[in-house]
Amino acid sequence: MSLFITFEGVEGSGKTTQIQRLKKYLTRKGIPCKVTREPGGPPISEKIRKILLDPDHREMLPLSELFLYEASRAQHIKEVIKPFLKKGGVILCDRFNDATLAYQGYGRKIDCDLIQKLNRFSSQGIEPDLTLLLDCPSDLGLKRALQRNRISKNEKEGRFEREKIQFHRRVRKGYLAIAKKEPRRVKVIDTRAGEEKVFEKIREIVDDLLVRSSQFGVRS
Amino acid sequence: MSLFITFEGVEGSGKTTQIQRLKKYLTRKGIPCKVTREPGGPPISEKIRKILLDPDHREMLPLSELFLYEASRAQHIKEVIKPFLKKGGVILCDRFNDATLAYQGYGRKIDCDLIQKLNRFSSQGIEPDLTLLLDCPSDLGLKRALQRNRISKNEKEGRFEREKIQFHRRVRKGYLAIAKKEPRRVKVIDTRAGEEKVFEKIREIVDDLLVRSSQFGVRS
Repeated sequence: MSLFITFEGVEGSGKTTQIQRLKKYLTRKGIPCKVTREPGGPPISEKIRKILLDPDHREMLPLSELFLYEASRAQHIKEVIKPFLKKGGVILCDRFNDATLAYQGYGRKIDCDLIQKLNRFSSQGIEPDLTLLLDCPSDLGLKRALQRNRISKNEKEGRFEREKIQFHRRVRKGYLAIAKKEPRRVKVIDTRAGEEKVFEKIREIVDDLLVRSSQFGVRS
Repeated sequence: MSLFITFEGVEGSGKTTQIQRLKKYLTRKGIPCKVTREPGGPPISEKIRKILLDPDHREMLPLSELFLYEASRAQHIKEVIKPFLKKGGVILCDRFNDATLAYQGYGRKIDCDLIQKLNRFSSQGIEPDLTLLLDCPSDLGLKRALQRNRISKNEKEGRFEREKIQFHRRVRKGYLAIAKKEPRRVKVIDTRAGEEKVFEKIREIVDDLLVRSSQFGVRS
């Protein structure tokens, strides 16, 4: 059995924490599990990530940004996601296609049809079986993200956190629009309930998916 | 008056030498002139160039390669080409859209329609007024390029030179097909005639363009 689960959400929505908790949970159940992220994954994609998130790159054109995300994804799918799904197990991926639509489409205002076309090319037929959208008000998420970056002294990856609050609000709106359009795949979880409650909800959704996929072979 | 002139050709076709000669020639005439290249140009595009040409990146997917070229171009157009053409002068650009069609389309066999669409997006309405295609048999060009890389110890940019001769033959075929389709824009110059003769031909073509553009304002 193979499952491709993506995590989405604005900055500071708590994706990293929940991914690690879910990984532990699945591993304890004896399910092979791989955590990965976008932009990033294999060496070429990690190099692209560096260019994309470098806060010094203020001059980056939205269109260049979009092409870099697609390049990173194409390589990620080929080297990491496809081979792992073929072997069998669960992939937990921090951001995927929906992030490109939310950030570059709704956030940067690039034509959403173009983005969806490019997403289809770069993802090479791979679609998430489940997307967990960790939702929170943009100002709250941004506050958390900035705090986290200060603590971890992560000064090399702050380009998006530096965007104005209006940008982050458009991104959130984009995510919620995607969820509304694809309610079967995308599950919205209100993160204001707190880490424990959020994980309970995630476990419930994932357990349900595991049962369904072992019965009907979602991606066997 | 502004002119955008691109140089195209397989590895080792002598583009760099001819671009430098043409730059000298135009500068002596008092024409503001800028030499630039793809992939590359502004800092972000030069970082993308490093990823693209690194010979260690053997695992790079053709589709990622394509997206990286488009990202580099979009940034190059915005930061270098558009501002310079607005000020007035002649841009001499080592490779552009045609290279993507020849290398990623004919060479890597990615769908040419897709490439042309992406090229249109990344070049943001900018098209060359003239393209000089320096043509030579692929085996001869490749031999020259490998020799040059050995001499200059350019070990960081050899990914394409390492491709099989069949790849380089497809690229040349692609270039010649483009020239056949757009004979007004693309001028094919047989480089076997030697450096001097090639430059004479280039000077003739460019002089003619300068006269026509000062009379009719090709891009004023």
